[in-house]
Amino acid sequence: MIAPDPKLMRLALQTAKNHQTPFGAVIAMGDQPFVSAGNLVSSTSDPTAHAAMVAIRQMADHLQKTDLAGYHLYTTCEPCPMCMGAAIWANLDAVIYGCPIEDAGNMVPQINLHADTIASKSFREIQVVGGLLKDECIDLLRELRSGKT
Amino acid sequence: MIAPDPKLMRLALQTAKNHQTPFGAVIAMGDQPFVSAGNLVSSTSDPTAHAAMVAIRQMADHLQKTDLAGYHLYTTCEPCPMCMGAAIWANLDAVIYGCPIEDAGNMVPQINLHADTIASKSFREIQVVGGLLKDECIDLLRELRSGKT
Repeated sequence: MIAPDPKLMRLALQTAKNHQTPFGAVIAMGDQPFVSAGNLVSSTSDPTAHAAMVAIRQMADHLQKTDLAGYHLYTTCEPCPMCMGAAIWANLDAVIYGCPIEDAGNMVPQINLHADTIASKSFREIQVVGGLLKDECIDLLRELRSGKT
Repeated sequence: MIAPDPKLMRLALQTAKNHQTPFGAVIAMGDQPFVSAGNLVSSTSDPTAHAAMVAIRQMADHLQKTDLAGYHLYTTCEPCPMCMGAAIWANLDAVIYGCPIEDAGNMVPQINLHADTIASKSFREIQVVGGLLKDECIDLLRELRSGKT
């Protein structure tokens, strides 16, 4: 089992704030962050540009390979099926999220499928850990939900 | 209910073949195709570059908007959770696929969650129609599965 690092979630939160969106993500190995991203859906007219997707793409592009084994994804909200699917295809070791989908769903539209449900249907092992800095992640979503999602 | 158009699935099949991958996708309105894409995962080192994802991103970029209401996605294989999630976020009206996940899963690794299961958990209506030119789509996958996935 991994030991989730609050410092990395704080970086995801700060990245979200810097982008003026309620969603941020970081990809790290151990306690070392490698990329951080905010949601770019509105700013790039790309409906797939959730923070976790952008972070995965940036990391794969940086490494010039599609296999991100050994890396962990930190994301302020529980990944939607799109983002969780991407985490599986990228072969990430673990996904650590803050705000659970139920709390997010009270504020913004969601696809109501849990990240660990998707992980359980996968052909790969991927750890899913929820609730890290949950209150801060919920507060950020409440504060910025009227912005870019 | 939409009337799936085999001509558009044939275009998705041909696009896949042109890219030497077993996966192709088309976005159309009615019987008019607008973009077609093959799987670019290996060629671009992007684990998220499934054919359907590439097509959705190209269409949104072309229109410079994230809302693809009125458009349909044709894809040679049943969309994985990542691609189906993207179809929902992009507000596509319908997804039409050829090869069901069970058949694909006999040949390549899959996340075993059906596209219509994901649709049923969504905050939006999206039609899902499976099995269009199923045999041709399965044959293509069998033929090219050793190539880029």
